Amino acid sequence: MNSLLQDSSKHLPILQATFGLERESLRINQQGKIAQTSHPTCLGSRSFHPYIQTDYSEAQLELITPIGQSTKDALRFLGAITDVAGRSIDKDEYLWPLSMPPQVSEDEIHIAQLEDDWERHYRKHLAKVYGKKLQSMSGIHYNMELGKDLVAALFQQSGYDSLITFKNDLYLKLAQNFLRYRWLLTYLYGASPIAEQRFLSHKLSQPVRSIRNSQFGYVNHKNIQVSYQSLEKYITDIEHYVTSGQLIAEKEFYSAVRLRGSKHIHDYIAQGVTYLELRCFDLNPFDHRGITQETLDTVHLFVLALLWLDSSSAIDQDIAKATELNNVIALSHPLEKLPQEAPISEILSAMQGVIEHFDLPSYYQELLNHVKEQIKNPELTIGGRLLEKIDNLSLETFGQKQGQAFHEYALKAPYALKGYESMELSTQMLMFDAIQKGLHLEILDENDQFIKLWHSDHIEYVKNANMTAKDSYITPLIMENKVVTKKLLAQAGFPVPAGQEFSDKDSALRYFSQIKNKAIVVKPKSTNFGLGISIFKEPAELTAYQKALDIAFSEDDTVLVENFIAGTEYRFFVLDGKCEAIVLRVAANVVGDGKHTIAQLVELKNQSPLRGRGHRSPLEIIDLGAVERLMLEQQGYTPDDIPANGVKVDLRRNSNISTGGDSIDVTDIMPSDYKELAAQMASAVGAWVCGVDLIIPDKTLPASKETPNCACIELNFNPAIYLHTYCHEGPGQALTPKILAKLFPEL
Amino acid sequence: MNSLLQDSSKHLPILQATFGLERESLRINQQGKIAQTSHPTCLGSRSFHPYIQTDYSEAQLELITPIGQSTKDALRFLGAITDVAGRSIDKDEYLWPLSMPPQVSEDEIHIAQLEDDWERHYRKHLAKVYGKKLQSMSGIHYNMELGKDLVAALFQQSGYDSLITFKNDLYLKLAQNFLRYRWLLTYLYGASPIAEQRFLSHKLSQPVRSIRNSQFGYVNHKNIQVSYQSLEKYITDIEHYVTSGQLIAEKEFYSAVRLRGSKHIHDYIAQGVTYLELRCFDLNPFDHRGITQETLDTVHLFVLALLWLDSSSAIDQDIAKATELNNVIALSHPLEKLPQEAPISEILSAMQGVIEHFDLPSYYQELLNHVKEQIKNPELTIGGRLLEKIDNLSLETFGQKQGQAFHEYALKAPYALKGYESMELSTQMLMFDAIQKGLHLEILDENDQFIKLWHSDHIEYVKNANMTAKDSYITPLIMENKVVTKKLLAQAGFPVPAGQEFSDKDSALRYFSQIKNKAIVVKPKSTNFGLGISIFKEPAELTAYQKALDIAFSEDDTVLVENFIAGTEYRFFVLDGKCEAIVLRVAANVVGDGKHTIAQLVELKNQSPLRGRGHRSPLEIIDLGAVERLMLEQQGYTPDDIPANGVKVDLRRNSNISTGGDSIDVTDIMPSDYKELAAQMASAVGAWVCGVDLIIPDKTLPASKETPNCACIELNFNPAIYLHTYCHEGPGQALTPKILAKLFPEL
Repeated sequence: MNSLLQDSSKHLPILQATFGLERESLRINQQGKIAQTSHPTCLGSRSFHPYIQTDYSEAQLELITPIGQSTKDALRFLGAITDVAGRSIDKDEYLWPLSMPPQVSEDEIHIAQLEDDWERHYRKHLAKVYGKKLQSMSGIHYNMELGKDLVAALFQQSGYDSLITFKNDLYLKLAQNFLRYRWLLTYLYGASPIAEQRFLSHKLSQPVRSIRNSQFGYVNHKNIQVSYQSLEKYITDIEHYVTSGQLIAEKEFYSAVRLRGSKHIHDYIAQGVTYLELRCFDLNPFDHRGITQETLDTVHLFVLALLWLDSSSAIDQDIAKATELNNVIALSHPLEKLPQEAPISEILSAMQGVIEHFDLPSYYQELLNHVKEQIKNPELTIGGRLLEKIDNLSLETFGQKQGQAFHEYALKAPYALKGYESMELSTQMLMFDAIQKGLHLEILDENDQFIKLWHSDHIEYVKNANMTAKDSYITPLIMENKVVTKKLLAQAGFPVPAGQEFSDKDSALRYFSQIKNKAIVVKPKSTNFGLGISIFKEPAELTAYQKALDIAFSEDDTVLVENFIAGTEYRFFVLDGKCEAIVLRVAANVVGDGKHTIAQLVELKNQSPLRGRGHRSPLEIIDLGAVERLMLEQQGYTPDDIPANGVKVDLRRNSNISTGGDSIDVTDIMPSDYKELAAQMASAVGAWVCGVDLIIPDKTLPASKETPNCACIELNFNPAIYLHTYCHEGPGQALTPKILAKLFPEL
Repeated sequence: MNSLLQDSSKHLPILQATFGLERESLRINQQGKIAQTSHPTCLGSRSFHPYIQTDYSEAQLELITPIGQSTKDALRFLGAITDVAGRSIDKDEYLWPLSMPPQVSEDEIHIAQLEDDWERHYRKHLAKVYGKKLQSMSGIHYNMELGKDLVAALFQQSGYDSLITFKNDLYLKLAQNFLRYRWLLTYLYGASPIAEQRFLSHKLSQPVRSIRNSQFGYVNHKNIQVSYQSLEKYITDIEHYVTSGQLIAEKEFYSAVRLRGSKHIHDYIAQGVTYLELRCFDLNPFDHRGITQETLDTVHLFVLALLWLDSSSAIDQDIAKATELNNVIALSHPLEKLPQEAPISEILSAMQGVIEHFDLPSYYQELLNHVKEQIKNPELTIGGRLLEKIDNLSLETFGQKQGQAFHEYALKAPYALKGYESMELSTQMLMFDAIQKGLHLEILDENDQFIKLWHSDHIEYVKNANMTAKDSYITPLIMENKVVTKKLLAQAGFPVPAGQEFSDKDSALRYFSQIKNKAIVVKPKSTNFGLGISIFKEPAELTAYQKALDIAFSEDDTVLVENFIAGTEYRFFVLDGKCEAIVLRVAANVVGDGKHTIAQLVELKNQSPLRGRGHRSPLEIIDLGAVERLMLEQQGYTPDDIPANGVKVDLRRNSNISTGGDSIDVTDIMPSDYKELAAQMASAVGAWVCGVDLIIPDKTLPASKETPNCACIELNFNPAIYLHTYCHEGPGQALTPKILAKLFPEL
């Protein structure tokens, strides 16, 4: 197993690995104490939630990422779960950013109210053996599996016969060397310098690097000694302690590293170890996720260096020595350098060796350089930086400040899912809800808004947050084709604007005699964004009609000439036969207050957190550009005019949200007969999800299929969801939870 | 009602109308006799077939179009039904092109074996009253309804209070005037000049215009006299004859025109007449559909002229007189001009009046001019032209020749549906099958291959012949995205080429180290037509790899680099969990015969009726262009070389059908384990219709999920159907009937 990397090809996919993170964190209330509330019900059931669980106590959240294909993936998902957790707990609560809890008494710690009897029993046992307070320390577990191609290549090179044996030896070597060099991680990332009053029985004389990683941390009793000499010995030792009752279960064996793979360690021999669980990380209170990208990648490099290094021949002695060294470092002052006896050059040169042998990107050299700097300058380590936050022998003030700041960050831009802002808003919202409810989530194609959701055996694929298996394929094809949609709506007896379809200009011109006294709309058959559409609210002159035809034919081979219907256009969002939301879109505008100029009013309006640029926020920034200035001019305004209080000044003619328009949620004030009519129209084309655009001249008039008092101008197979949820005006309608509830009625 | 058109606006949509056609035709056997076979079973059930029925006798087909929005629509559909009927009857049979049957005896005529008891009873009654022979005359009924906008505008102008009363008066006037001037149609379109031996008891001394439209035709007994004075009188008269038993049913009242609208004429008063049925048309034996576009449009103009003309004040007398005139003309020699007493200028100037008042397109003036020519020159009428076909007092020889020629035309290009050749082949095939089986068919959007099929209350929409409600919306979205497809197939345990996805060239270049010893494929993520794909069957040099990346990135933002899998690519067509067809596509080629040059072999191969241009035939013409010549050169050939017998000469490297490739149906020789595997792959993404592209290195090896011995390189959500049905080699698999059977299991 030695020299395996040294002898390997530099083309080995050395960085190939998968990662999973688990982060514990306490819920804290406004008094800075551990929250006494129950686990939030909006987070679904802990009996299956894959991402948000409770650890030891009811207030101790455990945030668990799925397996990520890179550290970036894993950290991003952790960020998202953190975001969801932060927005799911009581408004007055927040997540404690430190590994060490605030001041706490035993009776403030309530064992997590899990359904599983054994899990509760296990926690009661731990309380008895270690005390409940110790259980309120939090940390991060870093799970890592070497890539399949990488392992396969190393196996081939190794001369082993059995892949399982090879992997077992490989991971055992990693675990051994991890224990030999973990002190470096304690030095770099130790972040539990002090305990609050009455936490420790033994009082520390000074701040240290990591109480949690020291003998005062969460460790087994001294008499639990497990050998890492061989996998067999490791298994036998642990099984012995469980059989003898010194450990209640295999998982009560606490080590900074665990071999993982099967439910019972006994199965490792036959089925193989498949990954490592590194358990030594204190929460980094300078990052809202508790750990940084840099730490993750440095640790990745560190693990590869562990493989680069030779194994020890006297492993248990070496581990015992290294454990002692780790304890010293953990309990040293944060500004103290590494002790002389720490074999720092061994591990650093191994890291350098990996970088050079595999010609890793310069990023990894930078990481290593930063490690070296921190070794030279302890004040650069997390522990060093945290030192200055200690106030009056306490980190409570800092913890509160930092925790609340992270909480505010989570509540900012509530329409977005942190880390996934490049995806469509509606998909971000659906993903947020899925994580919250405890649905398994995999992004199949990020650019394509394609996700996979599952619960137990039930899988659903979703694209653009609304395209699912619930709609049949033909339905969006019907809606995509305006002519077909109109035909089917008309055949089903619903009101659509009368009109005609033309595939050549001559026939369209001949039709002029029939529309010369009518208000009409001339539009290309298939384009969707208002391109090439001309509206004549008054009957058109022949020349204007000709020009409109030219414009429309420049967009499509087929052009529709339809009667124009005067009225207000509303978007009805229909889901599974029911209208769930209605929005009115209004052209960009400001309303005067008698004090500010139009330009100032625009600026004020743009300060809304709902407004941003490029469709990544529910509303767009209003630009005071040429179009808007012309519009003002036509109304006799300049941007410096001060409109009187309550006077609305339009800045655009078009009501598109993309040009700064307002969305107004009118779901609650729209008469139900229009909602029913819209739902019936969607059903007429068999749509499960549908955006029904109705023109309503007067919504106080009753609507029915027989006397519609409205007309449908379009059915949309990919209706925007966020539009209805985060509105300029009105309460807003949460639609993604309803979609999920329909997709997974069992939840 | 008089002057209604004269007083109307010239902008009236005067040509707006709908049309339906019914054509009767006898099935004839090789002996030139009425076929004694049963109605073809492939034509489905006559208990509901909307388009192909039997009229009086088992051998007398009745072809019925749905309502067309124009004469063109209606005639096109009649052509399609004719095509379907021609290809559905026994190969040895054909449709008789003439109104008068060949020589026939009573016992050759078998009453149609309909399920409906009353219909059989009715036919027995007719046999008794009129004789069975008379029932074997065939003709065309021309149904016409004036357009809704047109009628609405005329109604508004009319001063009537009730639209129903107005329409009743309107259609009554049309019927009255039709009977007053129908003799013109008899003159122009009469095409039953002689009866074969023993048909008539009364022997005619010379050929005439139209036996069928004369007193020897299919007319009621003299004592049946129905008044057209008023609608009430008309109804009362008919009802009287039915009550008294002189007619067995309302429909036994034979008139050259019928008022239509309700099942019982009594309901006309309350519900209104809605259209006219013109029943006087003899089959035009010069057109395979029995009537021409010109005839249809001339009659349309004629009907409008009937509205232009004033009503008669003494209608029943006038009709009696006109009926007499019509009889004279029907029984006049085909080369005889119209008699002096025919008021030809009245009707001609009415037609001219309509043309001028409404400024109709010049086409209508041309039609009228042609009518005038035929009036001047009787030899130009159909009857006149038919005269010279009479041989030895018989039209049997002509009828046989013409009928067989039309039959051959129907059998030509069997993959196409006559009149709909601009649509996709697969859709034409599906439409053919739908018409054959008796499914109602409506083309919702011809350019978009969008059709509606229904049977009773059950509607199915189909696009591109394979997109239906049977597939869920998410399924094609999965297949459209190569990355997602691969992920899902891999997750489900199916073999896909290993590979990686890149969104920038740098990462893709870094990946070179992992593929530098492998055969690879570099391809853009989403394009579908082979664009931007580079295949390296030998490991690529870095520069070539770079170039391939550039090419792929020029097509898409995301590029896939996949292991190349050597083997043969097959297309498996999977429908509803079962592989129904497999095709192998082979690059354009010729096989030597030791006699012809390559150029000649190409020409010979191109003579196949399956080859055409522009995807409107199952195979494409092979061009001997630059690419093909270069390919020949590389093999050491020139187009003038004569390859030895059996030697295959490739003309292309790519196996696309679009560049002249061959399709080989290997359904029957592909081992079933591959079929099952392909079907399972389709099911893994939930596909109902799916084209599974498998690379199979050796199809004699067994295939299973565990040991696939193949790999899936693509799933296609819109697989071509015709490809499997009309093949260069192999039996070909009919897939559209299977699709229809799945869509309409009740049929």
